[in-house]
Amino acid sequence: ADVKKIAVIAGDGIGPEVVGEALKVLKKTEELFGYQFETEHGLFGGIAIDEKGTPLPQETLDICKNADAVLLGAVGGPKWDNNSKELRPETGLLGIRKELGLFSNIRPATVFDCLKEASTLKPEVLEGTDLIVVRELTGGIYFGEKFRREGASGEEAVDTCVYNVVEIERIARQGFEIARTRRKKLASVDKANVLETSRLWREVVNRIAPEYPDVELEHILVDNCAMQLLRRPSSFDVIVTENMFGDILSDEAAMLTGSIGMLSSASLGEGSFGLYEPVHGSAPDIAGQGISNPIATILSVALMFRLTFGYADAAQSIEDAVKSVLDAGHRTGDIAVDKSTAIGTIEMGDLIIAAM
Amino acid sequence: ADVKKIAVIAGDGIGPEVVGEALKVLKKTEELFGYQFETEHGLFGGIAIDEKGTPLPQETLDICKNADAVLLGAVGGPKWDNNSKELRPETGLLGIRKELGLFSNIRPATVFDCLKEASTLKPEVLEGTDLIVVRELTGGIYFGEKFRREGASGEEAVDTCVYNVVEIERIARQGFEIARTRRKKLASVDKANVLETSRLWREVVNRIAPEYPDVELEHILVDNCAMQLLRRPSSFDVIVTENMFGDILSDEAAMLTGSIGMLSSASLGEGSFGLYEPVHGSAPDIAGQGISNPIATILSVALMFRLTFGYADAAQSIEDAVKSVLDAGHRTGDIAVDKSTAIGTIEMGDLIIAAM
Ligand SMILES: CC(C)[C@H](C(=O)O)[C@@H](O)C(=O)O
Ligand SMILES: CC(C)[C@H](C(=O)O)[C@@H](O)C(=O)O
Repeated sequence: ADVKKIAVIAGDGIGPEVVGEALKVLKKTEELFGYQFETEHGLFGGIAIDEKGTPLPQETLDICKNADAVLLGAVGGPKWDNNSKELRPETGLLGIRKELGLFSNIRPATVFDCLKEASTLKPEVLEGTDLIVVRELTGGIYFGEKFRREGASGEEAVDTCVYNVVEIERIARQGFEIARTRRKKLASVDKANVLETSRLWREVVNRIAPEYPDVELEHILVDNCAMQLLRRPSSFDVIVTENMFGDILSDEAAMLTGSIGMLSSASLGEGSFGLYEPVHGSAPDIAGQGISNPIATILSVALMFRLTFGYADAAQSIEDAVKSVLDAGHRTGDIAVDKSTAIGTIEMGDLIIAAM
Repeated sequence: ADVKKIAVIAGDGIGPEVVGEALKVLKKTEELFGYQFETEHGLFGGIAIDEKGTPLPQETLDICKNADAVLLGAVGGPKWDNNSKELRPETGLLGIRKELGLFSNIRPATVFDCLKEASTLKPEVLEGTDLIVVRELTGGIYFGEKFRREGASGEEAVDTCVYNVVEIERIARQGFEIARTRRKKLASVDKANVLETSRLWREVVNRIAPEYPDVELEHILVDNCAMQLLRRPSSFDVIVTENMFGDILSDEAAMLTGSIGMLSSASLGEGSFGLYEPVHGSAPDIAGQGISNPIATILSVALMFRLTFGYADAAQSIEDAVKSVLDAGHRTGDIAVDKSTAIGTIEMGDLIIAAM
């Protein structure tokens, strides 16, 4: 039988709790659909710093490289915030992206009907909002040379933003391809009126655009995009952009849906390999209380099924189960209007696998 | 008598129309308050490209340098969008900032009560929102070295982001000082978990913070700030940040107020010199029709009176006049709910000077 290997990285804070529920979903999928999964666990982030002295131990990297996909909970917390750079969870995150060649970060910003009221946007503005941010993840100012030096006016710091045509072309194609499977609209975001990397970005996007005549391409400046996301969110379909702009815009887009606790993300490389994780963080303030919301992590499993394994049936089953549990009115504390009726992490997981 | 010299740069699109109304306000101020102004006009932006072959002619720069303050309309338009870099209006904008040493861009994002419904945010979320973005304007990735080169994977583009302690310290002080005159809360925005310039930024802000013990300082990551502006806009007082982040966040903040057509901005250097302009652009689509909204430009004059000349009485008179005209229900097309009752640019200007 075709056994799929999944590297499981629970991480810090609520990571282990929410990943625990996702593992129950994997098990249930095996029962229901006959698929087979083999999981191997790795230490990563703060817990890896504590136990192994580095946020990304070689062993964890090997587990990931040896797997077909990675499921990540969340990393980080105040405990490690003042560490030196090499001993910070974020450094592990950047490292794993680079080492695994995950150049494309896919973040759907979907509005869950039952959570519409949770958005700070007016419901009529949000109506019909369903967009995906495709963010370049292994280039740009995140990975360019950074250093300090003595300048004419004292100490100065330098970051370098670099993009080459290959990096731009592969992420742009990703944007066009995804747009093709949806409403066929691609917004390419840059700051071409100021940055050289953005001018190259725009040139490359324009050069390959004729290969996707069915996709309507728009170029939009990053400052304008930050505004238009607020003004007309439903007009966007797929947004493709570089690493730093994508970091900012994907968070803005996620927040405006009101469903940030429910959103999943995929980080993809060449081929079908991918790393899947919830958009929310490690929420150290509520960790260990059994009240966190496992839905975003469970939906990350569904995304993994779709994008890496091609198990559309199982993915659909999970997504439908989540919807039916929410429609039945079940809520964890973060999304409950009446907090007194909120259910716990495990209860939510149980309800979802029962509904599958 | 103390005659104040004002360099007037009408620019492109609706620039000349809205500046025309601001000039009427200057005249009215002379009559009412006895202040004296001398204006000198300069070509800038697209019109300067057309007439002088450069977006920022030396003559215009001289007029500005010779003045106590600059009033700018708006620059740019599709006509010049595909020009080479040296022949683009934006290049003139970056040039004038650098040449005049305007290192600090101040953008109040105020909610006008009568325009609350224009925001896409829920009124209860917007309630109490009144923030200022203080953006560093002459450093960072905007002005660092930019070039193309051949790399291992073909052509690549490079932008360099540089900040030194002096640049960071002066803009941080600006942020603290402004917070001090308001609700005494300063949010310093950076990406210190990734960028070296942000780490230096945070160090410098922390180093001078003890000099402002009355101001409550918070550090917030740029991606989180993009989210929190949406989630809890009213909790922000003053936001201070570097050039690129400020470009994005100030536009996001302006848009969420629903009042973007009404917002003014100041760009300041050392001393009292400043350049004042509306936040909105040149709106080439409605230029020349006499329907544009002059309020943001008129309020830019009020800002000039306060920040450069110390004419608080005249500033207050303008701001009160704008408020009373709006309260009386007068609207230009951009802010009218019932477009059929909209008044024109000149009519709006006349009503405001009559109300002063
Ligand atoms: C933690 C940080 C380094 C990271 C990033 O900026 O990429 C995070 O914000 C994200 O979006 O995954
Ligand atoms: C036109 C452009 C260069 C400019 C900037 O990015 O600074 C504009 O967006 C602004 O905010 O004034």
